[in-house]
Amino acid sequence: MNSPLLQLNAEALSEMSNSWRARLINSLPGYKSGMLVGTYESGSANLAIISSHFHLGSNPALLGMILRPDTGKGERHTLHNVLKTECWTLNGFRLDSAAQAHQTSAPYAKNVSEFSACGFDAEWRIGTDAPYVKSSPLQVGCRLREHQALNINGTHLLIGEVTALYCAADAQRDDGSLDLAKLDLATVSGLDTYSEPGKSRRFDLARVDTPLREQ
Amino acid sequence: MNSPLLQLNAEALSEMSNSWRARLINSLPGYKSGMLVGTYESGSANLAIISSHFHLGSNPALLGMILRPDTGKGERHTLHNVLKTECWTLNGFRLDSAAQAHQTSAPYAKNVSEFSACGFDAEWRIGTDAPYVKSSPLQVGCRLREHQALNINGTHLLIGEVTALYCAADAQRDDGSLDLAKLDLATVSGLDTYSEPGKSRRFDLARVDTPLREQ
Repeated sequence: MNSPLLQLNAEALSEMSNSWRARLINSLPGYKSGMLVGTYESGSANLAIISSHFHLGSNPALLGMILRPDTGKGERHTLHNVLKTECWTLNGFRLDSAAQAHQTSAPYAKNVSEFSACGFDAEWRIGTDAPYVKSSPLQVGCRLREHQALNINGTHLLIGEVTALYCAADAQRDDGSLDLAKLDLATVSGLDTYSEPGKSRRFDLARVDTPLREQ
Repeated sequence: MNSPLLQLNAEALSEMSNSWRARLINSLPGYKSGMLVGTYESGSANLAIISSHFHLGSNPALLGMILRPDTGKGERHTLHNVLKTECWTLNGFRLDSAAQAHQTSAPYAKNVSEFSACGFDAEWRIGTDAPYVKSSPLQVGCRLREHQALNINGTHLLIGEVTALYCAADAQRDDGSLDLAKLDLATVSGLDTYSEPGKSRRFDLARVDTPLREQ
């Protein structure tokens, strides 16, 4: 390492200003899964960028996400709608839509649709009671299966079962997996940066005592 | 969209083979946070690649990860060690270490250290009771704050407080955030693909009624 080493312990972290620490700690998971979350309730559509999605299981197909507690920001509309309707959509986006996607994080009033405020078209599909983002290269419909407010800090864990999936057929490989580069998905880092992956490498299943094969 | 549309509903998902569905559903979160998780217990070090890390809060600084239930794979060693020692390390890695990182997912026996089996050097640092990966560009120490087996499918949610952080000082921007591109971090997609981000865009805080500024 040519640069001097940044070394921080718990005490140093506790002494930082809240906004400095928030920007730092949000950087620590590395590249994050960025999805636009679409919800709908009482005639009002909502769209919010969330970067805390994770795989929980594939049989049944379960995805989790974390929503912040009520902080007065737009996200609580997503939480409110999900708890009311038990349904949401996840919509991947390309780097050329990153400005629009980021803009959904502004604290719009409840009666303002981030779809129209941020220049996205809503797309309704039979079987999903929440709007998808029309231009999205990866659309996933979820139904609420479990919700809890985590004791430790009141953030909300929402677990959804995948009920629908739409993407370009030629992005699916012969083994079932999706080639995300063909979908042009962007990834999020920290609170404000969006990237599209460049070089990549793919490997066979790792085994003990067998050399790993690159595909 | 030029390609035909892949359209799947819950029924279609339930009819897939388990391995096909696993590869597909693991692709749905998009680009994922990939970290090597280092643990230690009773003289035995363990290292496992985990791709389900997420930010839970910054005051206190909390990161979450999901570990699978006991499936006979190496991961349960991580779970066992974390529950015993209440301590683990997260270690980002570069694309040129992706083969080694992937190899940690092979089902090594409990008494085999993935550090040596996969060609990583362990690095001990004062204040963290688990080994770091020596060459890692982003090293984070965590202490267990909350653990639960999720009702829905028995996967384990582990919440850690950040107790230590080491990375190149010149990767930290003036506002506290880390420039992940300077750290050369890789990201994971699906079960077998590793990418390093190429182009990226960064934006100011989004506000209602103010045009978004790109940095």
